[in-house]
Amino acid sequence: MKIVQKVEKIYNDYKILGEWFNKFSTVGRQKTGGVTRLAYSSEEDEMHRIFKDISEDLGFAVETDGVGNTFVGLQKNKNKRCYLIGSHLDSVPNGGIYDGVLGVIGGLLILKWIKDNNIDIPVKVVAFRCEESSAFGKATIGSGLVTGKVKEEELCNFKNKKGESLKDILKSKGFLTKSYKLGELEGYIEIHIEQGRVLWDKNIELGIVTSIAAPKRFKLSIYGRQDHSGATPMMMRKDALSTASEVILEIEKLGRVESIYSTVATVGEIYETPNALNVVPGFVELGIDIRGIESKSINRVVSELKNSIKRITDKRGLNYKLTMTSSSEPVKLDDTIVKGLKRSSEKLKLSCIEMPSGAGHDAMEFADITKTGMVFIPCREGISHNPKENASLKQLYNACKIVCEYLKEVSL
Amino acid sequence: MKIVQKVEKIYNDYKILGEWFNKFSTVGRQKTGGVTRLAYSSEEDEMHRIFKDISEDLGFAVETDGVGNTFVGLQKNKNKRCYLIGSHLDSVPNGGIYDGVLGVIGGLLILKWIKDNNIDIPVKVVAFRCEESSAFGKATIGSGLVTGKVKEEELCNFKNKKGESLKDILKSKGFLTKSYKLGELEGYIEIHIEQGRVLWDKNIELGIVTSIAAPKRFKLSIYGRQDHSGATPMMMRKDALSTASEVILEIEKLGRVESIYSTVATVGEIYETPNALNVVPGFVELGIDIRGIESKSINRVVSELKNSIKRITDKRGLNYKLTMTSSSEPVKLDDTIVKGLKRSSEKLKLSCIEMPSGAGHDAMEFADITKTGMVFIPCREGISHNPKENASLKQLYNACKIVCEYLKEVSL
Repeated sequence: MKIVQKVEKIYNDYKILGEWFNKFSTVGRQKTGGVTRLAYSSEEDEMHRIFKDISEDLGFAVETDGVGNTFVGLQKNKNKRCYLIGSHLDSVPNGGIYDGVLGVIGGLLILKWIKDNNIDIPVKVVAFRCEESSAFGKATIGSGLVTGKVKEEELCNFKNKKGESLKDILKSKGFLTKSYKLGELEGYIEIHIEQGRVLWDKNIELGIVTSIAAPKRFKLSIYGRQDHSGATPMMMRKDALSTASEVILEIEKLGRVESIYSTVATVGEIYETPNALNVVPGFVELGIDIRGIESKSINRVVSELKNSIKRITDKRGLNYKLTMTSSSEPVKLDDTIVKGLKRSSEKLKLSCIEMPSGAGHDAMEFADITKTGMVFIPCREGISHNPKENASLKQLYNACKIVCEYLKEVSL
Repeated sequence: MKIVQKVEKIYNDYKILGEWFNKFSTVGRQKTGGVTRLAYSSEEDEMHRIFKDISEDLGFAVETDGVGNTFVGLQKNKNKRCYLIGSHLDSVPNGGIYDGVLGVIGGLLILKWIKDNNIDIPVKVVAFRCEESSAFGKATIGSGLVTGKVKEEELCNFKNKKGESLKDILKSKGFLTKSYKLGELEGYIEIHIEQGRVLWDKNIELGIVTSIAAPKRFKLSIYGRQDHSGATPMMMRKDALSTASEVILEIEKLGRVESIYSTVATVGEIYETPNALNVVPGFVELGIDIRGIESKSINRVVSELKNSIKRITDKRGLNYKLTMTSSSEPVKLDDTIVKGLKRSSEKLKLSCIEMPSGAGHDAMEFADITKTGMVFIPCREGISHNPKENASLKQLYNACKIVCEYLKEVSL
């Protein structure tokens, strides 16, 4: 191919990615510029509808499984052994427009290349439901159901902030009527924004993911005593919010101590009761998220956290209840894919590094059932789960190129 | 009167207080056993309706002013110079059933005695709207409007958690159509539970209030950076909740230092955005309440608080905005009433002490326009603004007795 043709082709691919991306980017838009597309909300439904429409316009076959995950292939045949490429279409509240979506349209571009060039590689593109934990307190539910990591019996335990169970919501949407199990796979590959600032700071085009950090999550309930804030002397109080504040700072400190092992510890949720200006806080609930790629380091944080909570509440004379809401182990991705993707990026002269993923991804659910790999592209300043999230479609294109190159190398 | 008759009469008065009290106590009842009767809610309306019904059944004249305060007297004549006795009928969210209500039914018992015994003392009983700040971030609005401390122009600035202004709510309820100004008063007297544990711990029947602590209130907005909690290393975060936690502990510390002057400092409200398990908190808003009876002590807390917030946010590289939402000065009550009520309790052989009030009350609004006094009765363990709030109708009866005795002494 002549240089001019090549440039035109690349330009055309950027344009296509841009057109697809724009169709998704207004869904659930907030005044802040961010988007809210909670799992199984009408906004997430709309995202899947757009994905279906784009895919059908391209002449692809679209299948929706029993829990609303969308699969796209050259033809309908869910059970044919194939590579699965994709990501998710939900978001955190007031999140960014790139997270998840880029992996889905990246997969679609690869499938388009395969079709346009008659390449004989079996690929399906997937958009999973409910990757973010914001809606039901548990992440990667759509992919977990597909791989069997999440059981249908568990669905009644996952509840949204209104207290509605995911099982009831699925039923009310007409899901759970057919199987959502996959056939055997050749492999699973996911393209995603890094959601951290390593690639951005080092100005590197691609990250080949070697392992995925896994969260241990806890709900901490602190039982204080609700009193009149004007008439209760400081020394007679059992203030649940001051107590929670000590715990929050302790969790931050534990995360900082273990940060040399890439471990992080976050209190992302707080609920106070009665939350009134003239009442000493009587009850506080915290949502705690601890993750890393080294189990020992994570376990040290958890163990120290338990000691600290006991010490702080004992000192203040309050009661508490700590519940582990989810726990998973760090996941190692497939070495042959890591090496293969690295070879491809070297061949295409794209800068890359091997790196762990601090964030969880649908890829975690596949690592022990098939060869699994992930490619990161930079996001601006590492900001994600934020209206200011930003990434480049050029770098998405580069990620698609190395994935396609790798698939050609191992398949043809 | 013979002893038997006296006992029967007292027993009958307890029974009446109990019957009235029971009519109110189911309104806004929560599963916790507490009640939620926010200002200008349908629950507060219902409380005033019950007060009106009881009063009319007793043959009293009931008037509702232009903002929904209810006045009860022997006959309709709002402008006749009289003593005003009463309190409020709203509550904090999930609050107790005694706060406010006892002062209203106590007033009613006194008015009944005056009627039954043909005593020539001009008394009206009042139930104010919106004494608690929980609904609109400002306390004693109903009494403030009556005394002119709160201006009608300000009502558009008071907003509930849905962002609706009090002015709009009043209009939608058909209020603001007539004047709500009082004529000149002989005095204002309020009976209330202590809401602290001084009387309870010392086993004293009555507290004669000498001064009322006044709150200075602030809204603190802390602007962090919303990031992915899994992929953002600890050292790169701008966590608004950890920052808020440092501020909360600092406020508690400042309150403790000044507690020798009876000053208290509380963070009663916290709102976090986006409040999601996998997002580093990007924004936190705190509601801060500082009160005491010594202006110098309160001012020291405020000044230190400002320094601390600046120091903590500077250290962490976050921005903030601190807004004073209300500020009032401690209020001294009328010395002649304090002495008179003390004489009455000695005469009736009831134990009493002079004491300051840590909590704000409608009485504050009256102290500079008429002679104002307050009587506290103990509440169990000092617990208030809490479902476990408890007080004795026998002690309410005692408070009514000394107020009636005092009124007879000065009027007849």
